[in-house]
Amino acid sequence: MSEPPAGPSRPTLDAIAQRAAVSLSTVSKVLNGRPGVSAPTRARVEELLHDSGYARRGALPERGGLVELVVADLLSEWSVEIIRGVERITREAGFVLALSALGDHLEPGGDWISGVLSRKPVAVILQFSNLTAEHRQRLRTRNIPFVVVDPAGDPPPDVPAIGATNWAGGVTATRHLLDLGHERIAVVSGPPDLMCSRARVGGYQSALAEAGLPADPALAGGGEFSRADGEREGRRLLDRADRPTAIVCGNDLQALGVMDAAFALGLDVPGDVSVVGFDDVAPASWARPALTTVRQPLQEMAEVATRTALRLRDGDLENTRLELATSLVVRDSTAPPPTR
Amino acid sequence: MSEPPAGPSRPTLDAIAQRAAVSLSTVSKVLNGRPGVSAPTRARVEELLHDSGYARRGALPERGGLVELVVADLLSEWSVEIIRGVERITREAGFVLALSALGDHLEPGGDWISGVLSRKPVAVILQFSNLTAEHRQRLRTRNIPFVVVDPAGDPPPDVPAIGATNWAGGVTATRHLLDLGHERIAVVSGPPDLMCSRARVGGYQSALAEAGLPADPALAGGGEFSRADGEREGRRLLDRADRPTAIVCGNDLQALGVMDAAFALGLDVPGDVSVVGFDDVAPASWARPALTTVRQPLQEMAEVATRTALRLRDGDLENTRLELATSLVVRDSTAPPPTR
Repeated sequence: MSEPPAGPSRPTLDAIAQRAAVSLSTVSKVLNGRPGVSAPTRARVEELLHDSGYARRGALPERGGLVELVVADLLSEWSVEIIRGVERITREAGFVLALSALGDHLEPGGDWISGVLSRKPVAVILQFSNLTAEHRQRLRTRNIPFVVVDPAGDPPPDVPAIGATNWAGGVTATRHLLDLGHERIAVVSGPPDLMCSRARVGGYQSALAEAGLPADPALAGGGEFSRADGEREGRRLLDRADRPTAIVCGNDLQALGVMDAAFALGLDVPGDVSVVGFDDVAPASWARPALTTVRQPLQEMAEVATRTALRLRDGDLENTRLELATSLVVRDSTAPPPTR
Repeated sequence: MSEPPAGPSRPTLDAIAQRAAVSLSTVSKVLNGRPGVSAPTRARVEELLHDSGYARRGALPERGGLVELVVADLLSEWSVEIIRGVERITREAGFVLALSALGDHLEPGGDWISGVLSRKPVAVILQFSNLTAEHRQRLRTRNIPFVVVDPAGDPPPDVPAIGATNWAGGVTATRHLLDLGHERIAVVSGPPDLMCSRARVGGYQSALAEAGLPADPALAGGGEFSRADGEREGRRLLDRADRPTAIVCGNDLQALGVMDAAFALGLDVPGDVSVVGFDDVAPASWARPALTTVRQPLQEMAEVATRTALRLRDGDLENTRLELATSLVVRDSTAPPPTR
């Protein structure tokens, strides 16, 4: 029932079994993520696999193999765009998408990695979340390439990652408002522990500085990337006597929330206040007024990540850290400031 | 390398190999969807497997096994809701979702079925599309249960299927408008080859008949389930001198298109014309005015389909044909007719 890989790597596995004082079948169980091995033995074998520089060399799988995608959750439009991109390239390559959602966790758990090892996917794509060093090592030992789409934190330099030009996007959104004549421009940002949030705010501040305008801390709000948080921060900013004439938002959902707040306060968008989103997910164009936003090419990012992962199987690539360009999409939620 | 199943079924496979005059390894290849078998041999072995009443009896797989979901495409909100429902139950059961999109095809192709057999999923869920008799037989031989969510056509009675009460939904939508005082109520329907479209129109006609009103053929339009088709049919219906005061639509996207048409013609929704959708996908609540619609419990349907499929592994269930209830969601796109 055990399946030691055929060919050149067999001697290595024999040696590892000997050094670990276990059977070859036990090494095979560890390698393939199968149960029936105690945790200490599993850890010892993993370490020996790593130290020996073992990496499974196998033929490319037949059609029907799996590309594993881990998304944060399935509720956001954001995740749906990522799924669409990964699915397209996966299908074109003759593979099938295996989809996991993290739910409330920030990183895939132990169950997940055992499942992955037993399913033997051709590649792993992670939205947003990072893998622990241990999980990265386990995937490398099995020669399973992985790529992160839009990394949340600051992944180690050897982790392939595909992002978007968030900082440049923040500049573009703010310059658009400056060009329309706005001078009191507020910002509602996303969670500060996410690199993309910080980069967008940085772009906003830089565009203001370029125009010789201060970034007024009283005009800065923030929260989760949700419509509810956008509405709360929108109400706070727009309820001020010296309210801003424009608001740059961390994402589209926040921007929709800011518009909700404006309407609730009896303000017109864009007559009284201009609003800019970020992402260009579907609700941005469905909104009324349709939302001016910075398009993040989410599907394309997911496609590039998947292609990169599939190519990594064939050897190292030169560029596994990329940022794809964002672009301004002007719709109906921005206009010159009201004349006073 | 061949993996004949252990235990009681082994003699059956030996007998099949003998009768087909092939090796046991060849039978195993056919059973597990592996290549290296000629098409005629594969067909002969499939037939013998079926005739012998063979059905693989295996232990429940460990955590990490796959539930296969086939959706029409990933572009519609509709599919996304189905994915969410199947993913949730799959995850809770300790399995992982394998996602395929049909793209332009109406049925999964030969590549798909070989892939499924080699991946050995614990269950298969199909959105909308039906399997060929041959594919159904192959899955049954491997004891892989399958369930259709919202069947498009009229599947054979032994195919488990979970739908929604489309006819009752059509009645509810139309009664809501009758109760508001409307008498000239138009319908924009979906493709007539889909059972769900026909059932919804049937419900509309029945509610009108109940109220003693004729179903005026001049007030009936139809097309694909798209926003563009909704706009085209909306323009045609609302451009009439004796335009309807309300329109019942085949789905939410058509309803958004009808609203686009109304606005383009300078009409107010719901002041001049009331609009009702069907499905209650996310854009219905994002629209302005927010759309009154008939909620189809898509996620719940997908969840019930997945639970049914997983339970089918343990033996036959009594009820594998269910329609879940639809319900009216009243928002801002319906009001009494304008006074003339």
